[in-house]
Amino acid sequence: MKISVIKVGGNVINDEVALSFFLEQFSQLEGAKVLVHGGGKLATAMAQRLGIEPKMVDGRRITDADTLEVVTMVYGGLVNKRIVAQLQAKGTNAIGLTGADANIIEADKRTGWEIDFGFVGDVRKANAGPIANLAKEGITPVIAPLTHDKKGQLLNTNADTMAQAVAVALGQAGHEVSLRYCFEKAGVLLDINDDNSLVEELDPQKFEQFKAEGVVADGMLPKLKNAFDAIEASVKEVWLGKVEGLLANTPKGTKIIGE
Amino acid sequence: MKISVIKVGGNVINDEVALSFFLEQFSQLEGAKVLVHGGGKLATAMAQRLGIEPKMVDGRRITDADTLEVVTMVYGGLVNKRIVAQLQAKGTNAIGLTGADANIIEADKRTGWEIDFGFVGDVRKANAGPIANLAKEGITPVIAPLTHDKKGQLLNTNADTMAQAVAVALGQAGHEVSLRYCFEKAGVLLDINDDNSLVEELDPQKFEQFKAEGVVADGMLPKLKNAFDAIEASVKEVWLGKVEGLLANTPKGTKIIGE
Repeated sequence: MKISVIKVGGNVINDEVALSFFLEQFSQLEGAKVLVHGGGKLATAMAQRLGIEPKMVDGRRITDADTLEVVTMVYGGLVNKRIVAQLQAKGTNAIGLTGADANIIEADKRTGWEIDFGFVGDVRKANAGPIANLAKEGITPVIAPLTHDKKGQLLNTNADTMAQAVAVALGQAGHEVSLRYCFEKAGVLLDINDDNSLVEELDPQKFEQFKAEGVVADGMLPKLKNAFDAIEASVKEVWLGKVEGLLANTPKGTKIIGE
Repeated sequence: MKISVIKVGGNVINDEVALSFFLEQFSQLEGAKVLVHGGGKLATAMAQRLGIEPKMVDGRRITDADTLEVVTMVYGGLVNKRIVAQLQAKGTNAIGLTGADANIIEADKRTGWEIDFGFVGDVRKANAGPIANLAKEGITPVIAPLTHDKKGQLLNTNADTMAQAVAVALGQAGHEVSLRYCFEKAGVLLDINDDNSLVEELDPQKFEQFKAEGVVADGMLPKLKNAFDAIEASVKEVWLGKVEGLLANTPKGTKIIGE
């Protein structure tokens, strides 16, 4: 089966107009598809309203028990179910899931670092079976950035990595997967302020060069690492770019090229 | 397919020990099954923490936009996903859903009353197809008390009615359905304070008599109406009682008898 795995980030989730535009484009995308969404700023706003202080250790954000409760409510409840209801209205038969639902994504509580990140999960395994079965029935999984350890504990998890794990698992199960990371830029840019400086294809050599030159840095590095991990595992194509470019049936953005 | 539809209410959801016991019993129940859970007090507590005043009109609770946001987070996110994660740990492959997910339950915003209930939904239609497909694959739907209008609006909905609608739809699709309402009493009681005064079988004649005598009143009336609606539609058996009685493979409680 041909299947698209689309990741959409906080910048779209935070903006009602951008989200509505995205969901319209997503619902028009042909064929089987999966949406993985990030969290956005709603959880931070909700935590503030509840008087929960953001907990930082060495400049890194920690998911303590109170914060996990908030992200479970906001990502798994509010954001996920609103997206599902809107997609249903647009004729896409969506089903909202976390990694715990149908056990689609198992994770390990993060250990082995100098600091304790709290209830943060690193993906152990995505299970393609239930995702592919839903897609075959014309149902579109919409996945929130939460996983579980299969011992009863929910875990806050990076949505880019979840999208990669889902795409790889579907690829390994024999499906032809197109993984597309939608974010605020047109793709990898030579000049971060100029969408016309788009790098249309990025291979590992160019990636190494760009890293050395500082063309790619910060948040782009883990995103690109996920993209290369996917293309080098089992995913047929991987793209990064803006919603309007990537959700065309012929995507426009940066295409990741494997070795 | 034989399938059990189990409804569990707020009294169990509110109590961590009772919930854990219930989930253990539920996970041991043989065969295909569906869980429909109520909301419990967590939403009220969360609304209070957020400074949202309960809105009452003529003694009835109204679901305004702020309250809908809270119940979407708490019922659809926190309560539902915690139950799913705990069931996964007990070996039951649960999937958490609202009525919007896979469009399993459509509702109409309540109209035609003297007061405006706000974002409250009355069930229009349950769709057996996706529920039965999941159950056939060994996946257990866990349904939160939220529906949608298929026009993008989530709606707060009574869990007893949702359980009835799901059971009836599965029955009409040809499945052999056992619907069991777990609540705080052993069943219908002649003396509400004496579990030994259990009415083992309740038929419509006896129900009318009990109503006239005031043996059943208040919250029991809509619950029993749902139960009789189910048995008179397409549901093979309907029971009311405590968790420990109803989740035995041979249920013990009040059995509803159709005409």
